[in-house]
Amino acid sequence: MTDLHDLSTPALLVDVDVMQRNIDDMAAYADRAGLALRPHAKTHKTPAVADLQRAAGARGLTVATVSEAEVFADAGHTDLFVAYPLWLDDARARRVRTLLDRATLTLGIDSSEAARRLAAQLGADAARTRVVVEVDSGHHRSGAAPDDAGPVAEAAAHAGLEVTGVFTFPGHSYSPGAQGDVAAEEADALARAAESLRAHGLQPTLVSGGSTPTAARSRAGEMNELRPGVYVFGDAQQWELGTTSPDRIALTAWSTVVSHAGGRVVLDAGSKVLGADRPSWATGHGRMLDHPGARVVLLSEHHAVVDWDGGPLPGLGSRVRVVPNHACNAVNLVDELVAVRDGVVADRWAVAARGANT
Amino acid sequence: MTDLHDLSTPALLVDVDVMQRNIDDMAAYADRAGLALRPHAKTHKTPAVADLQRAAGARGLTVATVSEAEVFADAGHTDLFVAYPLWLDDARARRVRTLLDRATLTLGIDSSEAARRLAAQLGADAARTRVVVEVDSGHHRSGAAPDDAGPVAEAAAHAGLEVTGVFTFPGHSYSPGAQGDVAAEEADALARAAESLRAHGLQPTLVSGGSTPTAARSRAGEMNELRPGVYVFGDAQQWELGTTSPDRIALTAWSTVVSHAGGRVVLDAGSKVLGADRPSWATGHGRMLDHPGARVVLLSEHHAVVDWDGGPLPGLGSRVRVVPNHACNAVNLVDELVAVRDGVVADRWAVAARGANT
Repeated sequence: MTDLHDLSTPALLVDVDVMQRNIDDMAAYADRAGLALRPHAKTHKTPAVADLQRAAGARGLTVATVSEAEVFADAGHTDLFVAYPLWLDDARARRVRTLLDRATLTLGIDSSEAARRLAAQLGADAARTRVVVEVDSGHHRSGAAPDDAGPVAEAAAHAGLEVTGVFTFPGHSYSPGAQGDVAAEEADALARAAESLRAHGLQPTLVSGGSTPTAARSRAGEMNELRPGVYVFGDAQQWELGTTSPDRIALTAWSTVVSHAGGRVVLDAGSKVLGADRPSWATGHGRMLDHPGARVVLLSEHHAVVDWDGGPLPGLGSRVRVVPNHACNAVNLVDELVAVRDGVVADRWAVAARGANT
Repeated sequence: MTDLHDLSTPALLVDVDVMQRNIDDMAAYADRAGLALRPHAKTHKTPAVADLQRAAGARGLTVATVSEAEVFADAGHTDLFVAYPLWLDDARARRVRTLLDRATLTLGIDSSEAARRLAAQLGADAARTRVVVEVDSGHHRSGAAPDDAGPVAEAAAHAGLEVTGVFTFPGHSYSPGAQGDVAAEEADALARAAESLRAHGLQPTLVSGGSTPTAARSRAGEMNELRPGVYVFGDAQQWELGTTSPDRIALTAWSTVVSHAGGRVVLDAGSKVLGADRPSWATGHGRMLDHPGARVVLLSEHHAVVDWDGGPLPGLGSRVRVVPNHACNAVNLVDELVAVRDGVVADRWAVAARGANT
């Protein structure tokens, strides 16, 4: 067993007991709510974590890219939903066709053009490819307008694809106090999208939604599948949104105090391990798990400058746990996660899908 | 030769002719100004690029971490300055001592405690380790107050280290219109720090400064070594600061238009390839190299939503070149850079120091 103090810093730690509680609680919520749970694997990119989600009852995994799907299929996760408006170039089409031999794939589309392209590129494999129509529930990122879901689905079906339903990502839930209104908008968008499919003669069997901030407001009747990602670890964004609490945060950057310049604490964890995410409403570039008043007020690639907010500063050379603002981007910066239990290193997990962008 | 259109997206491209011009012009500037040039390798993390900087006359390399030093030493770059306020734990000390057998190392310190720690941890190797005192020239990140450089240097010398001078990073130059004032503050801080060393009986032979935004204002007499990093590639921050222009930007993310949702352009390059950097003064999350009016107005991990600002939208499936806000964090997200000349793939370079945070 390796003592934490023998680890080189910065390193990303996962408290496995805290993570397991997050996994179990979300699985229990989905079960109570009558929703299938399909966690988004882009947060952890780690087969060892996906295995725990599956063991707790997850239906399958959500991924963002074909290359993430390849990694998780290789690790034995064979029910994969690429919740992304895919445009298939020749190389990506070949990879999807290869993947269909070892996984059940559900792919996102958000336009009739993309549906026709997908079918043309998949050729004879189109018939065994499930597609779902993405709709915009107010985040205004990608997705068709909810009332246009039917025509997109019709184009897909006409092109020979198996249309199974509709999905959305209510990303505008990442704003303080927004979760109630956003969950209502999400439900409305999904209902209109499903109705639009029916009006075009198609039956939506999959109605998929959810995000970590809105998960606790997701209801059967409004959707039948939930796709949260960040919940598995938690991060400073969720802490500040009030959708998690410090005792629920499993992911931290283990960091060394290298300087007390200017009477502040300078840590060796910068944007190259925490990520540079900093929404306008965040109170800083990251938080200290064990000192909630502190804030990262300046972040460089290898420096986090912390206003400690009272009490003696941690000494030079001491170690602290930094909570990244956004877990998904932090995890993508490291080759391995250090699994910790009771303050000692329990395991090391390869972040197998790190950098899997294509 | 691979055509660009056969590449999977997103991919980071480097226009080698544009990069070579950046390398040559900075080398020529340093030469004219009478300054040694020690480019910061954290920007490219790529030995193939460091080789070109050395061929153009660079004295050595700057790095941010011991692990970056290890990568570049392995690649034959043996004059390395770790421009960081190091605190040596046992593991890092062992690595530094090993590295001293194959490289000339200069290490940063910013406190007497760190100096004494460094010397104690290096033991018999302290005498062959050069140290430089970091001072704060107004960025308020790390670094001693300039007038405190002497006492820190004295502690280092007393502990048996070879003190060679002072350095600063004027990071507050990353602000519109600030470069003139910041360069003056930098010069003043370095002068005071050098004077503080002399007042303690130590002769500063190295006076090292510089950043890409202030490089063109750096003068002999104020410093004798220049350490810019980003200049090699350029990025949207430098473009918006006016310290580079689009024809000088060598690094772009090659991206596919996947959606026209909401009448905008949605690209498959998100924060997991561009980085999430977005200073308050930036006009967006990234720029289009070939369409300067466009702005990335919303960035997710795998989506860049672009307001195209006039003209027909690029078609679904077409490819565009996105300029990341911050080159250093973008490069750290990929395993290889695709070197491009005249629109075809000329080479692929391993980003050997990607993730080298420790």
